[in-house]
Amino acid sequence: MKATVFAPGSIGNVGPGFDVLGLAVDGIGDRVTVELSSGPEVPVRVRGTDAAMIPTDPSKNAAAIAANAMLRRYGRSRSAVVIIDKGLPVSGGMGGSAASSVAGAYAAALASGDPATKEEIMTAALEGEMFVSGRHLDNIAPITLGGLVLSRSIDPIDAIPLPVPPAWSVALITPNVRIETKQARAILPEQWDRASWIQQMANTAALIAAFMSADGALARRALDDHYAEPRRAPRIPHFAEVKRAALDAGAFGCSISGSGPTIFAIVDGDTAERCLAAMRRAMGDVECQARVAAIARRGAHPV
Amino acid sequence: MKATVFAPGSIGNVGPGFDVLGLAVDGIGDRVTVELSSGPEVPVRVRGTDAAMIPTDPSKNAAAIAANAMLRRYGRSRSAVVIIDKGLPVSGGMGGSAASSVAGAYAAALASGDPATKEEIMTAALEGEMFVSGRHLDNIAPITLGGLVLSRSIDPIDAIPLPVPPAWSVALITPNVRIETKQARAILPEQWDRASWIQQMANTAALIAAFMSADGALARRALDDHYAEPRRAPRIPHFAEVKRAALDAGAFGCSISGSGPTIFAIVDGDTAERCLAAMRRAMGDVECQARVAAIARRGAHPV
Repeated sequence: MKATVFAPGSIGNVGPGFDVLGLAVDGIGDRVTVELSSGPEVPVRVRGTDAAMIPTDPSKNAAAIAANAMLRRYGRSRSAVVIIDKGLPVSGGMGGSAASSVAGAYAAALASGDPATKEEIMTAALEGEMFVSGRHLDNIAPITLGGLVLSRSIDPIDAIPLPVPPAWSVALITPNVRIETKQARAILPEQWDRASWIQQMANTAALIAAFMSADGALARRALDDHYAEPRRAPRIPHFAEVKRAALDAGAFGCSISGSGPTIFAIVDGDTAERCLAAMRRAMGDVECQARVAAIARRGAHPV
Repeated sequence: MKATVFAPGSIGNVGPGFDVLGLAVDGIGDRVTVELSSGPEVPVRVRGTDAAMIPTDPSKNAAAIAANAMLRRYGRSRSAVVIIDKGLPVSGGMGGSAASSVAGAYAAALASGDPATKEEIMTAALEGEMFVSGRHLDNIAPITLGGLVLSRSIDPIDAIPLPVPPAWSVALITPNVRIETKQARAILPEQWDRASWIQQMANTAALIAAFMSADGALARRALDDHYAEPRRAPRIPHFAEVKRAALDAGAFGCSISGSGPTIFAIVDGDTAERCLAAMRRAMGDVECQARVAAIARRGAHPV
């Protein structure tokens, strides 16, 4: 009747893989508890990072929307009492809304005792994610499945887990600004010329080959986003300097996580701390959070 | 002073991988002999398939253009005397112009005794290919390197050979019509909307994952081209029926090779002949050539 699920943070839009490629990261995430209730709907309780910014109205809260979507799926008439422990920042580019959505959907399934497949969890989570940031799977899929995931299709869901080289991890730096995903999307062109999308497609395909063959030099050539990065970078303090610093320190690639402001670098374990230190220096006196994180091999799970 | 090179046929635009993904096929190709001459330029001699359709003026012949580009690269003042044995049809969608170009460039390097890298061969071959069908690497790269190749970049050339499952091969059927690449390109839109290119990108990325993990079911979902295929299919007799027949017979995917009219199917060795027979039946009474071919593991090579 009550269950708690932890869902990890994630990097969305990995490099050129706009809307389709995401990577789950260890050590930070959202925790959602769902209890079934036959009473009237009650406000969501939110604690932790940026708690004051999260709507408590269940009809506007990603975790509650996803939890109730999961309950409806099983024809449950009861509603979800939801408690969220936020570990991920709001509008930080770490997939916070998606993590809350996945954790809410998964916890609702556990609380109701219904066996939910990963696809069902992702389907319900999409409803929460849609409300906050739009209908895309690139955070939801790695949060649910762990690791690096290519979201090939939403209708029906086709999320493809890909191997990740054991030695690779990520360096993350989040300057103290907020970027709202829907706004960050509005500045991107609806139409794109053939040469540009072909280059983007080739880079995404090559990036997947790089992960699958543990080829850091190829990742470095392929992790090159011409669509979102150049248009979103101006909103992120010192983005160009941070990227340059990461690459000069040996990162396999560096770009914007989700719609930002978090900047991620793919790094080898040996160079991770050096890359992170260089990135932090390049931020100058901008207040920021910085961490090296392992790639989360395991997706959302009960705790 | 004289050398002969065989270059295999190839499937360009493999499924969604427009302009970037190509696959070399065994058992059919062009053979080009280059001899260095200090005399005046002489016409190209052409024998074999569609020989009468190939220009003999060296300034308009892909193999000769590529051969002379290779010689200029080494500062050679002598010109190339070129003989072509065509095995690939003209405007057939099997990379004929690219094969002649690669063989011409490679043979010129051998004839002049200069060590040419694969990149140098591809660079010179591009000049021949550009003259005939446009500036794209998706045939040239697999013809030169063998197997399945992702062409990530032309300037500079970044061609990424990918593993191919040992059991996979191709079924090819070429109806007796011709489609000129440049014309087939002119009907494609210059601009494309975001949702469409993102889907195309996801499919190409997934197709590469399918090859790298030998996942035929994934290939079947991913080999789905929304850009060129729907616009070019009307020029190919019975395309929809042939594709349906291939998939019903168990192919992992079926689409147009290059700009057509050749139709290819990716098949498991066990089902190859059954797929081919079904495809041929679906062609009805249209005159066609049909064959099962192994994927050429080896690219162009001296003979």
